[in-house]
Amino acid sequence: MNDVMEIEIKCYCDDDEKIKIRLSDIDARFVEKRIERDIYFNHPSRNFGETDEALRLRSVNDKCLITYKGPKVSKTTKARIEYETQTGDFNSMKNILLSLGFSESGAVEKERHIYSFSGMEISIDYVDGLGTFVEIEKIGELKDEIEKELFDTAAKLGLTKFERRSYLELKYFS
Amino acid sequence: MNDVMEIEIKCYCDDDEKIKIRLSDIDARFVEKRIERDIYFNHPSRNFGETDEALRLRSVNDKCLITYKGPKVSKTTKARIEYETQTGDFNSMKNILLSLGFSESGAVEKERHIYSFSGMEISIDYVDGLGTFVEIEKIGELKDEIEKELFDTAAKLGLTKFERRSYLELKYFS
Repeated sequence: MNDVMEIEIKCYCDDDEKIKIRLSDIDARFVEKRIERDIYFNHPSRNFGETDEALRLRSVNDKCLITYKGPKVSKTTKARIEYETQTGDFNSMKNILLSLGFSESGAVEKERHIYSFSGMEISIDYVDGLGTFVEIEKIGELKDEIEKELFDTAAKLGLTKFERRSYLELKYFS
Repeated sequence: MNDVMEIEIKCYCDDDEKIKIRLSDIDARFVEKRIERDIYFNHPSRNFGETDEALRLRSVNDKCLITYKGPKVSKTTKARIEYETQTGDFNSMKNILLSLGFSESGAVEKERHIYSFSGMEISIDYVDGLGTFVEIEKIGELKDEIEKELFDTAAKLGLTKFERRSYLELKYFS
């Protein structure tokens, strides 16, 4: 059995109004706006920069999520193992991680406008200090098939400039 | 400001029926029965046996909790810093911890009969493979005052044999 992976591509976006028109043209459905505040942590004895892992605590509207992302397994997309679950309280979880020797490695804040299209999630991301991006994501096991679908969708939206690095890497390590 | 601590004592219990009668004599209020299934984890680069810390994932009835316990700060009780929060899903949280290099160090299963008395929580614990114990616990900042209260209550219940080790230690390291 293959593991279920979050497969996504990130694209630079010069003109979000044009993207919104194209999303409407292809009948993408607007889902919601979200404010996401993320803290990323480094490991007490591994360097996540080297191992290409991530541990994230996210506050999104009134919920809180903890997410582990494993190393990327593809050269072209951001496909990777991901485990995520809700946590009751942002600060208690942060205190648990700090007590275990994890250290804050950075924070990213963004407003996301989320659309749904053909089983994919398409987000226009307004990222504090970084600018505007579009992420196209699908969850599944058939990596090659899904990657093709993501890039086809990017082409439909006129997006041609891709970025494999995370917002955290772009903000702190570029 | 002092940190709020979970202060508790653990007592060996030879005769739970006698304890129940004494709890009734002092007007302790029965709260609930719970089935608690715990997994304890060791740290990827610290030995919790040496640092006297604990990281626990607990399923209790239909909820799931993650708890960090710092080193004990008292010679007579189990007073320590504790951070706890609910998590959405037991297996996702377990997968996150295993991916981060934490390893399962043991599992403890028990049935607790919980009573409330004068701001304290008193539990009769039927612990798989270990026998019956009574734990008396109060949360607060005034360590010395609370410790006295806990031992006074143990005396009222006729409990005289105390144990500072956790169920995990008793099950695996004694």
